[in-house]
Amino acid sequence: MIDKFEIIGLIAAVLTTSAYVPQVYKTWKIKSAGNLSLTMYITMFIGIILWLVYGIHLNSFAMIIANSITAMLTFLLIVFKLKYK
Amino acid sequence: MIDKFEIIGLIAAVLTTSAYVPQVYKTWKIKSAGNLSLTMYITMFIGIILWLVYGIHLNSFAMIIANSITAMLTFLLIVFKLKYK
Repeated sequence: MIDKFEIIGLIAAVLTTSAYVPQVYKTWKIKSAGNLSLTMYITMFIGIILWLVYGIHLNSFAMIIANSITAMLTFLLIVFKLKYK
Repeated sequence: MIDKFEIIGLIAAVLTTSAYVPQVYKTWKIKSAGNLSLTMYITMFIGIILWLVYGIHLNSFAMIIANSITAMLTFLLIVFKLKYK
């Protein structure tokens, strides 16, 4: 049986990741890279990769899934930032 | 001695949180609530609170610190969104 805290983690993963998607979509849609600087997106990307490493260490499925998807989305924002700056 | 994975988690916390601060600052500075809808900010806020609960369960100092600060910052974004919409 899955632990009830794992379910809380998975709900957290779904909520924060799904709140992040529209930001990436809007950035793509309006062909603008949003408010943040490239440095900030790269800082965030490195941070998310470290959260992923930490999540793998903790054996947390929720953290692994959430940070994998968020890392890909942030990578897309970096690509948009370089393309549409 | 602090575990090396805890240090990775703390660096992750510093990076992702510090990348989030300028977004909140810019939102306050330009008196605009950014790209996201109120619903998305609230979704993110609830998600972060659940990550905090999950972090407390995992006894992860890095997750507790990061999600506490990010929850406060997201709460500020919700206040800005309501004030400057």
